[in-house]
Amino acid sequence: MFKKVLIANRGEVALRIIRACKELGIKTVAIYSEADVRSLYVKKADEAYLIPGDPIRAYLDYVRIVDLARQVGAEAIHPGYGFLAENADFARYCQRRGITFIGPTPEQIDTFGDKVKAKKVMEEAGLPTVPGIPEPVTEVEDALKFAREIGFPVMLKAAYGGGGRGMRVVHSEEELRTAFESAYREAETFFGKGDIFIERYLDNPKHIEVQVLGDKYGNIIHLGERDCSIQRRHQKLIEIAPSPALPRDLRMKILGNAVRALMRVGYENAGTLEFLVDVRTGEYYFIEMNTRLQVEHTITEAITGVDIVETMIKIAAGEPLPFLQSDVTYRGYAIEFRINAEDPKKGFAPSPGKITAYYSPGGPGVRIDAGVYKDYIIPPYYDSMIAKMTVWALTWEKVVARARRAIDEFIVRGVPTNIPLYREIIRDPDFLRGDFGVKFLEEKIQKGEYDFAIEGEVDREDIVLAISAAIAAHYGL
Amino acid sequence: MFKKVLIANRGEVALRIIRACKELGIKTVAIYSEADVRSLYVKKADEAYLIPGDPIRAYLDYVRIVDLARQVGAEAIHPGYGFLAENADFARYCQRRGITFIGPTPEQIDTFGDKVKAKKVMEEAGLPTVPGIPEPVTEVEDALKFAREIGFPVMLKAAYGGGGRGMRVVHSEEELRTAFESAYREAETFFGKGDIFIERYLDNPKHIEVQVLGDKYGNIIHLGERDCSIQRRHQKLIEIAPSPALPRDLRMKILGNAVRALMRVGYENAGTLEFLVDVRTGEYYFIEMNTRLQVEHTITEAITGVDIVETMIKIAAGEPLPFLQSDVTYRGYAIEFRINAEDPKKGFAPSPGKITAYYSPGGPGVRIDAGVYKDYIIPPYYDSMIAKMTVWALTWEKVVARARRAIDEFIVRGVPTNIPLYREIIRDPDFLRGDFGVKFLEEKIQKGEYDFAIEGEVDREDIVLAISAAIAAHYGL
Repeated sequence: MFKKVLIANRGEVALRIIRACKELGIKTVAIYSEADVRSLYVKKADEAYLIPGDPIRAYLDYVRIVDLARQVGAEAIHPGYGFLAENADFARYCQRRGITFIGPTPEQIDTFGDKVKAKKVMEEAGLPTVPGIPEPVTEVEDALKFAREIGFPVMLKAAYGGGGRGMRVVHSEEELRTAFESAYREAETFFGKGDIFIERYLDNPKHIEVQVLGDKYGNIIHLGERDCSIQRRHQKLIEIAPSPALPRDLRMKILGNAVRALMRVGYENAGTLEFLVDVRTGEYYFIEMNTRLQVEHTITEAITGVDIVETMIKIAAGEPLPFLQSDVTYRGYAIEFRINAEDPKKGFAPSPGKITAYYSPGGPGVRIDAGVYKDYIIPPYYDSMIAKMTVWALTWEKVVARARRAIDEFIVRGVPTNIPLYREIIRDPDFLRGDFGVKFLEEKIQKGEYDFAIEGEVDREDIVLAISAAIAAHYGL
Repeated sequence: MFKKVLIANRGEVALRIIRACKELGIKTVAIYSEADVRSLYVKKADEAYLIPGDPIRAYLDYVRIVDLARQVGAEAIHPGYGFLAENADFARYCQRRGITFIGPTPEQIDTFGDKVKAKKVMEEAGLPTVPGIPEPVTEVEDALKFAREIGFPVMLKAAYGGGGRGMRVVHSEEELRTAFESAYREAETFFGKGDIFIERYLDNPKHIEVQVLGDKYGNIIHLGERDCSIQRRHQKLIEIAPSPALPRDLRMKILGNAVRALMRVGYENAGTLEFLVDVRTGEYYFIEMNTRLQVEHTITEAITGVDIVETMIKIAAGEPLPFLQSDVTYRGYAIEFRINAEDPKKGFAPSPGKITAYYSPGGPGVRIDAGVYKDYIIPPYYDSMIAKMTVWALTWEKVVARARRAIDEFIVRGVPTNIPLYREIIRDPDFLRGDFGVKFLEEKIQKGEYDFAIEGEVDREDIVLAISAAIAAHYGL
């Protein structure tokens, strides 16, 4: 096993990796930018080194980071997520300088990093991908022929376009004729060429992903799925494991096929296969694979009991998977809430600044992964996520009740956060029913269904005390 | 289900009950003494009422508390542990005033509150108790006869004594003759009467307890056992579930017999049967039953996933047990550490005062139940426990590694705590082997095996930053 590991990341994920290392008896080396001097993870590492200069480049300058690892005697680097986590050149450079990259091989990062290539590889390995045509068409009769093959509804997309222009959702052959003409004309006007792609259209599908682990000896297992449909601008906010609304048969198909496909192409360390799923029709399509630890790995840890970060380190150190597929058991439900310093009222704009009050919930079934504390100043340079709350309980009903209790307890003052939004979502009957797809949150906010006050969160405790004092006085207590 | 519950307690257990109520959608009413105005649980309750006057009596004056419950419309009272939790008169008074006491019946509290009666009742119900003679003896020949029946080693005890006087541990017949004479003389000298009791002596046994739940319909189940052998002055400090050193057969006997005995006498709500166990000989003896929630219920919650406090409330509201014995499954190991404001270097003397820095650990497998925060002033009137840390992992080895990581993370400054002692215990090979009985801690401390600094806990982070800055400067980073 490694004696010392460098963490090429910051914030809560750096702390998460430090914790895994400490549990393995491994010394930890943190790096930090000038903006992160007072970050919690810096204090909790055994050693911490300032990378002066640009606060973002500090976490991207891999030549410097690998050099540092060599200088301080770290044998391996964990990249966390974001920054260098899916940079094959970095993984390759580590290899060349004799440092172990805790993650898949550079070739695997390359393959899955190229979305077109990844789709092709996984298609060949047996995974269904969103049906579509290989080349764009210019004639409505060709479009009709292909649409019939794919099956309605289909999506028309300008081959050379973007931003929604030249896009049409079409539900029938009659509709297609008109839609094709107008989409073609629009594409021609805006992009100079009218060529149109056609692909299967999923209406508000679920985003379902499968956590996998593979070792250097060909063993690949899954740790179940996660439902990550609650998103804003394609970024996940709430994740659930297992999905409360995925039929058992469909779940089994997705999990089984995911592992089988990955066994065909080979994969090492932790990874996540993402799917779009229509639970009504039973369709599921592979969209991409992330070759790294996911933010939401905590909910999988909660239901399986497996320490994913620890397992990543063990795999990188050459150990075989410490358990078989049949050893993995599932218990209960877990929900993760990403606590972001951002203002849902202002289009989720980041809201850096000083945290003037901070209280994270505790008690049964609550796990907190936080990178901040009272008086901490959130720098403006990075992702707005400041903490993660993972709630677990034996049943779906109970985990929702517990999450409601816990998110109500959470206090962050000084900067707007998305906590008030979560207090709405967790009380939404549609959410409780598991009835949500990737459009859920956008639609709810657009319709004004959620009424949350961000600014001037009232100091509830003061109210409680004031009311209680008044009542006590009334009763002459 | 109740709409409003009053919590007749303070500190972390009051908060624990508030959390369970919130998850059930029940409004909570807290009471607090003048010393507890700034306590966390007071802020987290829906309503909170000051009970002026003596800070301890505030939580014991049950007439006043029951009156308050009626005034504010609370239908039930949860007593937590300590204070009124095992007061049958209180339970009876609740009954008379139409308030539901969340716990067993007054009669059950009476029965098990009387230690002699409890032993007799459970003996009749089939549980083994420490073998001894019913009446004291005055003649050595009688003593010999009884000692042979009981089996060596035996303990001689002055019938009218205490404080260790007239007590002898005897391993053989020859030894008994001399020991009896001297014990008799000693007892005669000190207590006026030389009469001697004889009972089976267990050398450094384990303290093993069984968590049980019973409903109003005769259903009684257990939730496994806890190993609470790590104690100081008969007060538990560290508890483990399941015991890492209880052979499977012995565990099955204890659990099965505990439930069978309780079914014979009948029991409602949560309770705990305590046993002394010699894992070498396989002997186990019932010593007493606690008719309330235990501090260490959290470790049972961690391994079973059952919310014990919620279940207590449901049972009191007349619901049948929400699960069968066969529904209860066990996963992994959990350890609870009681974080006490007390000084292990000064005989565990309580150390009230102001908390100047507070950081409780997070990440995978860590649950915190805390009643305090930075700048909170611990009042001198109550139990010294300020927080509980419960750590869970899939295996015993992993939970010890995780606990080591987590207790190292825990920061409490301003008052001495027993955290430094825990950092020693968790690294003790005897602890790791599960090789400990009730004398473990006393012996270790007496032998000076633990070297922990309480006063002036160094600010480790400052050191880390200073060293890192120096190294960074050295490498020209």
